[in-house]
Amino acid sequence: MATPVQQNLIAKNKSYAANFRQGNLALPPAKKYAVVTCMDARIDPAAAFGISLGDAHVIRNAGGSCRAALRDLVLSQQLLGTTEILVIKHTGCGMLTFKNEDAMAVVRKNLGNEAVWEVGAFLNGDFLPFGDLEKAVMEDIEWVRSSKLIPKSIGVSGWIYEVETGRVRRVA
Amino acid sequence: MATPVQQNLIAKNKSYAANFRQGNLALPPAKKYAVVTCMDARIDPAAAFGISLGDAHVIRNAGGSCRAALRDLVLSQQLLGTTEILVIKHTGCGMLTFKNEDAMAVVRKNLGNEAVWEVGAFLNGDFLPFGDLEKAVMEDIEWVRSSKLIPKSIGVSGWIYEVETGRVRRVA
Repeated sequence: MATPVQQNLIAKNKSYAANFRQGNLALPPAKKYAVVTCMDARIDPAAAFGISLGDAHVIRNAGGSCRAALRDLVLSQQLLGTTEILVIKHTGCGMLTFKNEDAMAVVRKNLGNEAVWEVGAFLNGDFLPFGDLEKAVMEDIEWVRSSKLIPKSIGVSGWIYEVETGRVRRVA
Repeated sequence: MATPVQQNLIAKNKSYAANFRQGNLALPPAKKYAVVTCMDARIDPAAAFGISLGDAHVIRNAGGSCRAALRDLVLSQQLLGTTEILVIKHTGCGMLTFKNEDAMAVVRKNLGNEAVWEVGAFLNGDFLPFGDLEKAVMEDIEWVRSSKLIPKSIGVSGWIYEVETGRVRRVA
């Protein structure tokens, strides 16, 4: 039995595939860039950031963290030839709403001590929340600049997307 | 001076924002699910998987790895109430085309020994490539099922998206 969410995927994909005409795109991104943005449900990167199919890697995680995206960025650049990164965080981000100790308390209450141990073992005890949006963009860019795994030749810019207006603005 | 990639973002976003009417969506995903898929440039999850704005977390990394998405999944479920995961890998994935030692050799050649050290320190020396697509989906689901950080009540299904046809099919 498919769940409603699965039924939605099957039905909507059927229409998409019926009209699909871009089956011959190459694996490496045609415009040689990568976008790092948040997993937030209110962001549609292709539409909001004007990314055509085949043009860019789109990396999405909680907060649009470059640190959490290190593996993705290295593979994007070293194996698939991208040369530019756009870091796009957003207003109203969930990462602004909690501290590590809050998240840890929820995990302990809901999932128990073994789960808390896994947060330490697999996530270094850090969910990467942040308290200031623009500062978080700056810190991400500094972190990228300090990593030996990201060549200095890679261009990095920082942006904030407003979920209230659909507008993006540059901050770094 | 904005790069062509930045100019494209600014221009396309201007049109998007001009027609934007969904500024009042809530932070938690309305349909309470999360999609884990690949950063591959040939995938447009909103269009191909029928995800309306505000409905689902969309997590994207190299290979659509649940292991790499652990932080995202825990926050999605524990702080924002999602209860279902769709894992969607795809044909022609870059992760099928190399082994860890190949990627490491490229990193050493292009970026030097300090960068290789960072792969060990920050990525446990593992880029998470895979040799068989369906098996990789199964292994991800088993991994989710074995994590103490993902409750047994969370529904997990596995899918493969065909970049050649635009079609998605269920494998687990």
